[in-house]
Formats: sequence, C-alpha cells, structure tokens
Amino acid sequence: MLKGNMAKKSVCIVGSGNWGSAIAKILGKNVQGSDIFEEKILMYMYEENVNGRKLTEIVNTEHENVKYLPGVKIPENVVAVPEVCEACTGADILVFVLPHQFVRTTCQKMVGSIKKNAIAISLIKGFAITDSGIQLISSIISEILGIECAVMMGANLAVEVASEQFCESTIGSKNEVTGRLLKQLFQTPYFRCTVVEDANTVESCGALKNVVGIGAGIVDGLGYGDNTKAAVIRLGLMEMIKFCEIFTTGSKTETFFESCGVADLVATCHGGRNRMLGEAVVKSDKTIRELEKEILRGQSFQGPLVAKEIYEILEKKNMLQRFPLFVTVHKICKRELEPSNFIDCLREHPEHM
Amino acid sequence: MLKGNMAKKSVCIVGSGNWGSAIAKILGKNVQGSDIFEEKILMYMYEENVNGRKLTEIVNTEHENVKYLPGVKIPENVVAVPEVCEACTGADILVFVLPHQFVRTTCQKMVGSIKKNAIAISLIKGFAITDSGIQLISSIISEILGIECAVMMGANLAVEVASEQFCESTIGSKNEVTGRLLKQLFQTPYFRCTVVEDANTVESCGALKNVVGIGAGIVDGLGYGDNTKAAVIRLGLMEMIKFCEIFTTGSKTETFFESCGVADLVATCHGGRNRMLGEAVVKSDKTIRELEKEILRGQSFQGPLVAKEIYEILEKKNMLQRFPLFVTVHKICKRELEPSNFIDCLREHPEHM
Repeated sequence: MLKGNMAKKSVCIVGSGNWGSAIAKILGKNVQGSDIFEEKILMYMYEENVNGRKLTEIVNTEHENVKYLPGVKIPENVVAVPEVCEACTGADILVFVLPHQFVRTTCQKMVGSIKKNAIAISLIKGFAITDSGIQLISSIISEILGIECAVMMGANLAVEVASEQFCESTIGSKNEVTGRLLKQLFQTPYFRCTVVEDANTVESCGALKNVVGIGAGIVDGLGYGDNTKAAVIRLGLMEMIKFCEIFTTGSKTETFFESCGVADLVATCHGGRNRMLGEAVVKSDKTIRELEKEILRGQSFQGPLVAKEIYEILEKKNMLQRFPLFVTVHKICKRELEPSNFIDCLREHPEHM
Repeated sequence: MLKGNMAKKSVCIVGSGNWGSAIAKILGKNVQGSDIFEEKILMYMYEENVNGRKLTEIVNTEHENVKYLPGVKIPENVVAVPEVCEACTGADILVFVLPHQFVRTTCQKMVGSIKKNAIAISLIKGFAITDSGIQLISSIISEILGIECAVMMGANLAVEVASEQFCESTIGSKNEVTGRLLKQLFQTPYFRCTVVEDANTVESCGALKNVVGIGAGIVDGLGYGDNTKAAVIRLGLMEMIKFCEIFTTGSKTETFFESCGVADLVATCHGGRNRMLGEAVVKSDKTIRELEKEILRGQSFQGPLVAKEIYEILEKKNMLQRFPLFVTVHKICKRELEPSNFIDCLREHPEHM
C-alpha cells in the first residue's frame, strides 16, 4: 500500500459515455474510505439535454447516466462537471475515456489547468496516423499536456463490467510506480488488473483488435463455423503481433497473452460491435456509413477507420502482402472486394509458408 | 517437393471414427496423382455391425462412414480393413487417430508388422499418467513400435473439416524433414498446416484445452458474458503454458500462438463437447458419468479425465495453488465444489499478483 504522510491523490475522469460511466462506478467505489485517493471524483461530462434536463444535473441528482449507461448507479462521490478545466484543476490522476476524435481538442482546452505532476491514463481505443507511421493516443495526451500517460485495455465490454461480471484488464505503464498506483485505483474483486511495462503494445492492441473483429463477423456472416473463426482470430493475432513489432517500439510477445491481447480479441470477435458490422457487411450491400446510421444510430464503428489507417501505412511502406487479413478487411469495408473473397485471401497467408 | 527416384510412400490410417474419417477424406484426395505418396491408403477400422452389415463393407462399397461421419464421401482409394496388422504392413506413414484408451493395445498388436523406417503421426488427444509426470501418447507409440512419431493438433472440429470449411492445423515434428513430408500429405486449400519443432507442446495443448473448455462451459452455464469467458480462456491459456513449462521438455511460448494453442482453445471454449459438459454440470446435478450417458450416449468426455490426471500430478508435486483453474474444474467435475464457486477460485489467480 502506498500510504504515509503523502497527501491523498485526487482523481478526475475525462469523459462519461458508456465505458466512462462504468469506470466511474468502479473508481467511485474504490476511493471510498481510501488512504491513498481523495473521496470526491470530478467527472467531465459533455453537456447534453435529455428530455429537457441537463445530463450533468441528472447524473448529480439521480446518480445514473440515463443516456449512456441506463440502469447502473454511479456512486454519489462522483460529481459530473460540464467544464473540462473545472473538472481537471487540482487532479493528480486524469482518466481519459473520450471518443478518440475529441482527444486533441479536449487536451488543448486543459492546457494550463492541470497540475504539473499529474499523471494520465488513457482508456481510449484508436490510433492517430502520421506521415511516418502511427501515433498513439497516449502520446498525444502526453505531448499536449506535458505529462506521463499510461493506458488500460482489456476484454471489458462496458455493460458486463457495470453489472460486476468477473473480468480482467491490462494496465500498460512504462513507470512501475505509476503502474502500481493505478492498479490500486482500478482493481476490484470482479475487475482484475495486471500491469505491464509494454504500454505501446497494450494500446495498439486496443485499436487493432477491432479490425480482426470485423473479419470474425464476415466469417459469421458467410456461415462458417468455429474452426474458421478460430483461424481468423489466430491469423489476426499474428498480424497484430507483426504490426506491433514493426510500428511500435519494444513490443514484447508476452503482452499479447494479457487481457489486452488474446482475451480482448476473443471477446471482440464474439460479442463486439465490429463483429456485428462484419456480419452486416456480408448480409447487406449497404455502405459502412449507412450501416453506422442503422446499427449505431450515427456513432462510428472503430474498425473500418483503423483498417483504413493501417492500409495507408502499409501501402506506403510496401508491406500490404504481409498483412492479408488487415488489407482484405479494409477492401471489403470499402466495397472494393466481395465479402465472399475473404477466405480466399487467407489461404496463402504468410503464416502458412 | 520431395521427388526424385525414391519409391512412393504408402500411408495407413489407424482408426476410423469421426475425426479419422474426416482425415481419410483429406488424405485420400491428396495422394491422388501424387509423385510422393502411393494412391492406395489402407484404413484400419474396428469392425462393427451396422443394421446387419459390416461397417468396413459399407465403407468399401458406399464410401461413407455411415456410423461416425454420415453424409461425407470418403475417396475410393481409401480402403477399410478390419485387421490392424494387415492394414499397417508395408506402410511408410502411420496416421494414428484412435480413442486414446486403445492406443497401447493396438500398437502392441502391430509390433512385428510394421516397416523398420516407418514414421508415425498421432492425431490423438490425451495424456497417459506415470508416477513421475505425464506421458505423451506419441511417446507410447514411439516406444512400443520403435519408430519416430510426430503429432497434429488444431482447431479442427471434424464435421467442419469434412465440409471443407477453411481451418488451420499444427504439425509438431522434432524432425524437420518428416515435418515437411507430413505437411505435403495433409495440407489442402482449406486445411492449412504449419509445422513446428516443439511437438511436445503441440500434443499437450490437445489434452489441456479440454479442461479449459469445461471451465468455459461453466461460465456459460452460470450466465456470464463474453468478458468472463475471455478471462477464463486467457487464464486457462496461462495455466497451459505454465504446465507445459514444468512438465514437457523444451516448451516454447510461440507454440501457443499456433492453431494447436490459442485457436484450438478458442474453438473448444465456444463449440466443443467439453464446453457443453461444463454447461450441463451447472444446469443439472447429475454426475459426469450420467451426463456422458445422456449427452454422448456412453462415449467419454476427455476433459474430466485429463483434469483428474493433472490434479493428481499437481497434488503430488505440491503445486495445486499455482493452477487454480485446472484444480477447480476438477473439483467441480467431481462434485466436491459447487459450480457457483468457480469464479471465486479465479479472483486471486497467480496471474493477478
């Protein structure tokens, strides 16, 4: 236990959607009566009107995010705040759990309002793409705010976590002390955390798995059984490993055995949204955008975006033929290739040579 | 290609159940017109009466194993033979695909009838247990017959393979030349083989995954979702890795990324018989033996047997607390522990320390 005469650390949650609200439930409860963490947690919430009332007001009176995680009580010591600067002022630990397109602008607003020695942890799945390769969301946060940023990823479907079903998660932190502190903040008897140093791989897994998830949905849509799906999961995993070897620094194979790796991939390929998308791509000839409107009421699927970004890097680096699964998922999403061709693209996979 | 002036190699399949018949379909087709393999394959079939006719006779006239793999044509160049010595005489490659309780007696009958330089490959899932640890089925074959024995394991549900659904399999062969030869024998456009040297791990995976499969069925039966199942799969995989590290020689972590490892485990935990058993154990209070009668009409489930064997070794070596998942599955199968306690036994898993 980290105790002693240190001041207690205060926590701010930046974001309050489905996953953010499930995490608020965990953190709110964990800090109660803690020697290490302040009991009051501020949660930045993008203000919305829900049936004529402000969402922050609903959360602060009814202690439930009725829009994004209905039916789940958020502890009363978590207070929703509609201004990000107000929320983050004085916080020692910033938990980022926003849709990834809002990270940059949100961080820019926060500059000047955060403590110098604050630390961040990103629960955000996705990449940014630069000319030379990928940029991790954690490094965007780190760069803009000038602070250290760890990550947490795992087989963590929000609704199941909120209902306290046993699961695991992986914290990636290059700094061991930070990793231990964050484990104390997040771990509960039903939410088990392991800490690894290889944070870049942990974070990359969170983005890449959604591409494989689409592939799993495609084979479901085509009517294949468990053998074929297992092959897609394995070949996808091998491409994830190879991608990380090439594009992230110091990637370790063992990290793929953590919850962020194989476990999250398996959960995504059986119960994730991107799997659902893959199946829909086979069963209709609508575009991804139309399917997004239909299935997610306008929110975006993560997988096709990551697939496109990966495709562009691989094309630039002349590496397309080393990643047939990633490439084929992208082409099927773009409707450049029929879904029925998916398996043919895997028969001569480099793993079989 | 292995060609030249070598004599063609003749193949014998020892066993002809569900998986044996699916393999007969693959091999029978693959050897047709081959430069390397003899076109005629003898398949040892334990003689049975089916509606007043001999099963070998039905297979040899109708080219279908109506009892164990109905609806699938076996190529005509595969000939069923009811005497194992007749089947194996002159064979260069012996493909073992029997229920594992018959391996020893069958091999003993074959002694004296096989070619001196024959090679074997075992597709059999299971262990034998000795005082000092585990004995692999391949080593029993090797010992009794005095020949080299490779193995093949993977995410290969027989019915799906027989219907030519794309899948992968792993050949484990300590001898590289043998491995290449066997790949040529088994691989088809829909059945993709990789070859690894770490044969002991490949074979151990085939036995151990069924224990984890029961665990996956238990969480299904208890009503948990994809997060929990993913955690069980991952923790099971970690115990498989640790078990192999301790009990097999030269086990390599990479082998678990092959089809025999993560892929077969995922398929088993979603579509396997032992998963079904785990679910049934939660939903009824019958004994394993009663459930076998009910679900498998008297055949035995592999998982409980392996779980018991593992338990005994671990107890002897004072290692029970390092394998909580394996141990708990065994105790639940023995009805010494309520299935509802399964998750509690995983909360303080060594992986979370």
